[in-house]
Amino acid sequence: MSKYALNCIGVLTSGGDAPGMNAAIRAVTRAAIYNNIRVKAIFRGYQGLISREIQEFNTQDVSNIIHHGGTILKTARCEEFRTAEGRQKAYDTMVSEGIDALVVIGGDGTFTGARIFAQEFNVPIVGIPGTIDNDLYGTDSTIGYDTALNTIVECVDKIRDTATSHERLFFVEVMGRGAGFLALNSAIAAGAEAAIIPERETSVAQLDELILNGFRKSKNSSIVIVAEGGGGAQAMAGRIHAQYPEYDIRVSILGHLQRGGSPSAFDRILASRMGVAAIEALLDEQRSIMIGIVNDEIVNVPFTKAIKYDKQMSDSVINVSQILSI
Amino acid sequence: MSKYALNCIGVLTSGGDAPGMNAAIRAVTRAAIYNNIRVKAIFRGYQGLISREIQEFNTQDVSNIIHHGGTILKTARCEEFRTAEGRQKAYDTMVSEGIDALVVIGGDGTFTGARIFAQEFNVPIVGIPGTIDNDLYGTDSTIGYDTALNTIVECVDKIRDTATSHERLFFVEVMGRGAGFLALNSAIAAGAEAAIIPERETSVAQLDELILNGFRKSKNSSIVIVAEGGGGAQAMAGRIHAQYPEYDIRVSILGHLQRGGSPSAFDRILASRMGVAAIEALLDEQRSIMIGIVNDEIVNVPFTKAIKYDKQMSDSVINVSQILSI
Amino acid sequence: MSKYALNCIGVLTSGGDAPGMNAAIRAVTRAAIYNNIRVKAIFRGYQGLISREIQEFNTQDVSNIIHHGGTILKTARCEEFRTAEGRQKAYDTMVSEGIDALVVIGGDGTFTGARIFAQEFNVPIVGIPGTIDNDLYGTDSTIGYDTALNTIVECVDKIRDTATSHERLFFVEVMGRGAGFLALNSAIAAGAEAAIIPERETSVAQLDELILNGFRKSKNSSIVIVAEGGGGAQAMAGRIHAQYPEYDIRVSILGHLQRGGSPSAFDRILASRMGVAAIEALLDEQRSIMIGIVNDEIVNVPFTKAIKYDKQMSDSVINVSQILSI
Amino acid sequence: MSKYALNCIGVLTSGGDAPGMNAAIRAVTRAAIYNNIRVKAIFRGYQGLISREIQEFNTQDVSNIIHHGGTILKTARCEEFRTAEGRQKAYDTMVSEGIDALVVIGGDGTFTGARIFAQEFNVPIVGIPGTIDNDLYGTDSTIGYDTALNTIVECVDKIRDTATSHERLFFVEVMGRGAGFLALNSAIAAGAEAAIIPERETSVAQLDELILNGFRKSKNSSIVIVAEGGGGAQAMAGRIHAQYPEYDIRVSILGHLQRGGSPSAFDRILASRMGVAAIEALLDEQRSIMIGIVNDEIVNVPFTKAIKYDKQMSDSVINVSQILSI
Repeated sequence: MSKYALNCIGVLTSGGDAPGMNAAIRAVTRAAIYNNIRVKAIFRGYQGLISREIQEFNTQDVSNIIHHGGTILKTARCEEFRTAEGRQKAYDTMVSEGIDALVVIGGDGTFTGARIFAQEFNVPIVGIPGTIDNDLYGTDSTIGYDTALNTIVECVDKIRDTATSHERLFFVEVMGRGAGFLALNSAIAAGAEAAIIPERETSVAQLDELILNGFRKSKNSSIVIVAEGGGGAQAMAGRIHAQYPEYDIRVSILGHLQRGGSPSAFDRILASRMGVAAIEALLDEQRSIMIGIVNDEIVNVPFTKAIKYDKQMSDSVINVSQILSI
Repeated sequence: MSKYALNCIGVLTSGGDAPGMNAAIRAVTRAAIYNNIRVKAIFRGYQGLISREIQEFNTQDVSNIIHHGGTILKTARCEEFRTAEGRQKAYDTMVSEGIDALVVIGGDGTFTGARIFAQEFNVPIVGIPGTIDNDLYGTDSTIGYDTALNTIVECVDKIRDTATSHERLFFVEVMGRGAGFLALNSAIAAGAEAAIIPERETSVAQLDELILNGFRKSKNSSIVIVAEGGGGAQAMAGRIHAQYPEYDIRVSILGHLQRGGSPSAFDRILASRMGVAAIEALLDEQRSIMIGIVNDEIVNVPFTKAIKYDKQMSDSVINVSQILSI
Repeated sequence: MSKYALNCIGVLTSGGDAPGMNAAIRAVTRAAIYNNIRVKAIFRGYQGLISREIQEFNTQDVSNIIHHGGTILKTARCEEFRTAEGRQKAYDTMVSEGIDALVVIGGDGTFTGARIFAQEFNVPIVGIPGTIDNDLYGTDSTIGYDTALNTIVECVDKIRDTATSHERLFFVEVMGRGAGFLALNSAIAAGAEAAIIPERETSVAQLDELILNGFRKSKNSSIVIVAEGGGGAQAMAGRIHAQYPEYDIRVSILGHLQRGGSPSAFDRILASRMGVAAIEALLDEQRSIMIGIVNDEIVNVPFTKAIKYDKQMSDSVINVSQILSI
Repeated sequence: MSKYALNCIGVLTSGGDAPGMNAAIRAVTRAAIYNNIRVKAIFRGYQGLISREIQEFNTQDVSNIIHHGGTILKTARCEEFRTAEGRQKAYDTMVSEGIDALVVIGGDGTFTGARIFAQEFNVPIVGIPGTIDNDLYGTDSTIGYDTALNTIVECVDKIRDTATSHERLFFVEVMGRGAGFLALNSAIAAGAEAAIIPERETSVAQLDELILNGFRKSKNSSIVIVAEGGGGAQAMAGRIHAQYPEYDIRVSILGHLQRGGSPSAFDRILASRMGVAAIEALLDEQRSIMIGIVNDEIVNVPFTKAIKYDKQMSDSVINVSQILSI
């Protein structure tokens, strides 16, 4: 691939699935065809690139998928792509299939693999951030985050019916292994009394204060959102139960349902814009970049930065959360 | 209460909350007032009857609640009502508040308490079945069951997005301690591959067959719904994982969100009809009965029967489940 | 088709689409294959039978469709099937494709056509009632009705937010050309003040009473549900506006969104059971019948009856509606 | 009000209701109390300020409202406030009730009234943008817009089921009198074939092209989203029908249900942040400003600008819409 050409691109999804990935696949496909570029769909992420699970897509193949969760390309983690041999096979596939460039939709791990592959074989690759955790540097939002946030909030609305009726204290564990965006923002949106997030240490004393000022004072219900990286809702509940055996405490771990469902309007639009932008970036001879949206404008973020830096959590939002839980 | 009079009724919710309880409270209140009967709302179940947490309701007090989950009367389990002293206090409250009869909304435990209380003090009590488990004899459906079924199915639809994208085997645990109605019917509605229910023993061999005929053959995704009474999704997953370490297995325990949420149209109508019927039954001098709906007709079921008998699961529905999972 | 054989069936959807039709197609297909019967999918209703738009289905073809609205077989009204020539072509297709019997999913018009065709060519046909109107004699519920009811109720819940905030009188028009089931039951479930249905004449005086007793007295919001067969919400609103120009009146016509959406749990289970029952009926050598569910049991209803008789509306339900609107 | 003091604020909602207004009322109330400022709730907008429909709020009064659509303060348009006499009465109420400043939640008209009132009586007023149209200059998003967008998209998803099953051409009319934000973005999110918006003239020729390139070519379904300001879906459909009588064309006017419903996570967070910011702005002695959010940061926008300027529609988003409808 010494000389640049853009007659055919490959598109794949990799890592954890996220609602809106199908909208991104659709946008990539249509924007490519709009620009007279052929599209080869690669199934099961990098694994499919290695084992040649590939099918040419036209506009009809991506009809009627914008509103479906998951990914029609399926996704998988791929150990073989971590090896030089695996990547050589992947490159061989590209050559024999005539794929000039790749659009990869996924998160951190996806882009780490893409960066190495791009360097080794001089392959143009553009990434689209698809992950519900919203933990990627360089974009205000990742595809799937808004949907997951709404899913969590709808679940907590339901749990609140029970919490209020029974006057219970609920600990609800949500996804976001290393990042508390889902936990903090769902706590604000659901009107929860507190959010326990990995970015802030929560001492026993603070939890105590919550209990004293909230639940105990009003003899009412309380909901605490706990990010899964934060030690776990179960442990938290145990700690409080040991100290306050008189309270009716329950734990709910939302689990995998947070990853699925029909994408929200926001995520569909985000995915559509990013998909179009990915093709435009390739036409502009960009490579080894992730498409981001910052302040409602498309930006190109080098893989190196998207992978390396941590996304910062806004202090003012943490502040809002605390003021409103009085 | 030697002589029968019906100038004022009390209404309470007791036991686990269920979507549609508010619709029932509204119907009881409006039907009573329509018949020139006053309504006293009793808070926190039997506990509130003992400790006099009571407020008179008019039609406005039940406006705009038909679509809300939970119960505006709150609910609690009450140890004191299991004692003769507790029930004496409850009766004293009825006398001093001028409450002639009770409408109690809840499940098995609620009606067991009601039956004893009614016998001891000769109090007219009519029950309305409100529980998501649908495990009460004498009625085709209990209030909250249809909503919980829809909630589960929506959750499994989301989980399927992830199961399909990742080609995983999911065990999803749903409520229904002693009864598999939710599990069996949600499995049919969600298109799951199998339902593990307490009414039927599932041998290791059967689970094996599922694996062999379903997941393994098609290299595809599978969802198994497990009733919480059935041993637990976690244990099931462990058993399969030990035997088939090559499969990507996940467990999701839906938990308390199954109890909440805006009631479905079906549950709102059921609750409305039952609430009106409860008042009509009292006017017809019925007592110690639960309102049921059988073949779309209102029936009066003696508490003794509603409590004593088990509701049977239809063989033909189990059969449908098996035919469709091929 | 003088001698009976059941090696291959055809399945089609016809008339207006209804949520749950896909669940029925899936159940028919799987139950047939379970019984070693081949399945030919016929596209665009009777038109596809005439013009041979046919494809063989296996179990994979109906995977992952149970939760989708609409019909993957598409649907159309077909003038040609009303002619003897059209029906002859349809029969020729059956012979050349080796289709021994038909399962037709639809409403009144679908079964009328089926009955004539079955008579003329001695073809075994079983019908499955799929229509949101629930207006078919012989079954407690038709596929799609429960979903449409929930869709309407969710819409009216939204409209009520606005009605209450602005203290308006809303007329909401819902589907159900000749039958008020959707209107009456959605009015109960949504807590509307009145339902105007074709089965009951609503005089100007009655509407007046609504206004006097409801909206005017409480200076509050009111919602009136109007069945589309009942003269129209627009006309109703005009009449009231002329008399009470001081009220803030709005009209909302819900329209086609009532026909779509992911089917409810109830409709998916109903469709699954009916689909299995249709195949079992054919195996039992039944023909010219519609599958119904009465009192939770599968019944076979002769086409002649399903078409001829009107489904009765329950007086007790009308009564509940009136008591609760006080 | 010559000397500045901030012991007590009044809060009201005015103009058309929007989902998230309750979340804003809650945030304003809690942030005020957090800062030791008393809160007086004013009912029915400016009308309530004139006629003294006022009630003091504490934190409990805004519990459990964050997830409800509409506005618990109710809203109304108020002719009297357009007169000097009306505004004098409103000011008298403020003096006698001890209200030092106002937070007004609404749109264009609300802020126009606020600006005149603030000038005449030297009253500190801060506005919060609550309108589903997203047509206010100075903020990236208004409260209610994201929810309305999701509501529209869910409705169009349902309509698409029918459009696809019947192979029809649908014109769906959405709100947004002078602004096409809802129409354009819902068209992208719903995967519609075109959006007709007031910002762009759509010629007969362009509609023709849509028909030729889309519906006619593929013999498939098409959905066109029409902003209500754009001439009307009905007129559009008539024009196309006259030219192409062979197509099956339907019109759906979504109407008032677009204004209601439980607010999305995004709108709840936006409203929460803006409510807190409104109190902080008053504490910072800001007045006659609207709170906006630009690039995820809170900004203060003078009423004069928010009212005067038009919000621009992004060309790149219009471009995305066109590329994806191929």
